[in-house]
Amino acid sequence: MDKQGQPNAGLLLIGDELLSGRTQDKNFPVIAQFLGERGIDLCEVRVVSDVEEDIVTAVNALRSRYTYVLTTGGIGPTHDDITADAIARAFGVEIIKHPDAVKSLHGLFAEIGVEPNEARMRMARVPDGSQLLINEKIKAPGFCIDNVFVMAGVPHIMCLMLEVVGQMVEGGVVMLSKTVCIKRGEGDLAVPLAGIQKRHEEVSIGSYPFRDGDVFGANIVVRARDEAKLAAAFAEVEKLV
Amino acid sequence: MDKQGQPNAGLLLIGDELLSGRTQDKNFPVIAQFLGERGIDLCEVRVVSDVEEDIVTAVNALRSRYTYVLTTGGIGPTHDDITADAIARAFGVEIIKHPDAVKSLHGLFAEIGVEPNEARMRMARVPDGSQLLINEKIKAPGFCIDNVFVMAGVPHIMCLMLEVVGQMVEGGVVMLSKTVCIKRGEGDLAVPLAGIQKRHEEVSIGSYPFRDGDVFGANIVVRARDEAKLAAAFAEVEKLV
Repeated sequence: MDKQGQPNAGLLLIGDELLSGRTQDKNFPVIAQFLGERGIDLCEVRVVSDVEEDIVTAVNALRSRYTYVLTTGGIGPTHDDITADAIARAFGVEIIKHPDAVKSLHGLFAEIGVEPNEARMRMARVPDGSQLLINEKIKAPGFCIDNVFVMAGVPHIMCLMLEVVGQMVEGGVVMLSKTVCIKRGEGDLAVPLAGIQKRHEEVSIGSYPFRDGDVFGANIVVRARDEAKLAAAFAEVEKLV
Repeated sequence: MDKQGQPNAGLLLIGDELLSGRTQDKNFPVIAQFLGERGIDLCEVRVVSDVEEDIVTAVNALRSRYTYVLTTGGIGPTHDDITADAIARAFGVEIIKHPDAVKSLHGLFAEIGVEPNEARMRMARVPDGSQLLINEKIKAPGFCIDNVFVMAGVPHIMCLMLEVVGQMVEGGVVMLSKTVCIKRGEGDLAVPLAGIQKRHEEVSIGSYPFRDGDVFGANIVVRARDEAKLAAAFAEVEKLV
């Protein structure tokens, strides 16, 4: 929770392939939007590699600080999929095979005609005390333990799991925002904008510069949870156009 | 440095607009590739908002842990550009106006015909002891203090600054990698892959699954700094095709 009692969140993206530049993450913006729509402030993102110690450290830092922690990556069947073990270690609990996950995976493997070998059944392993992120479309589930939601890294599977997460988290008051594009250099706007920010402490004013040929400008984004406060600050910003 | 004496790096992306989902970061993959080409392992990325405390905490965590830290965002002229102040606080030094930055900005403002007002001249402020990231194409410079390189968030300006960073960092032995696409489910590959990983501890083997219609497969990526070790492990992986 933040100082206003609003829920907030941290996001942990797990995978060597993201840090090496081999794979470009697609999940961060999707999750940012998902949280924003529910009035949950995303306050911090971390990307770490497939190293247990690094995952444990990051999860523990984030889960003590934010209402919710979402993670992506590292829950498949191969040796580099170590997220479940790392989360269990972060919580100091054992890894178990979740019976509902075992059942779901057996169904999946029968359907696609592959053997439910030990490696495949690794995907049923979750930290003791976890709930599954599962539904009829998700056969190899993610899981949730306490305030930590552990999802797949493959974007379309992550999206399916995010739907389940949506039924489990409690949202807050949605952050409202209004944007105006001002075709003047940021250097002209800086002093009046700082004044407006000072007079309206409960709104957040961001300035995002652009250059379009010879035209310098900035998109000014005003954000607040309270509509009246947003409108009051925005009215002042609009006068700068 | 890592355990093999190779340089490594942490990356800090700064900006509310990234966390709110308003702006999708484009700098992370560019910087990942830049570092990879120089044999510098990118070990961790963090994204934080424009909150001084959060920037200070992240910078101090990363700079004590990695050979280099690169940051993007928050060095413009407006009230939400607080990166220079945060870095100064992280290092416990004063903020000064760097004479070369003052000179460069005066030149820029004369050229584009705007007044060098106090807000614009804020862009000359750097932590005491910094070197500028500047050249003939960069008029509003970034800066470097100790092992921390502070760059703009706007991608094309960030890229110009990255060129300067490239002249200042010492690279390592470049990580080599070979990839093979295997059209078998990861669950079939997991046991043999784990065996290969165990026999070749100095290479890193990643498995990245995909599904193409009814075909399940995985790209297996083998990485190592030593060509012979890479070849030996990769030869074993290729036998799984």
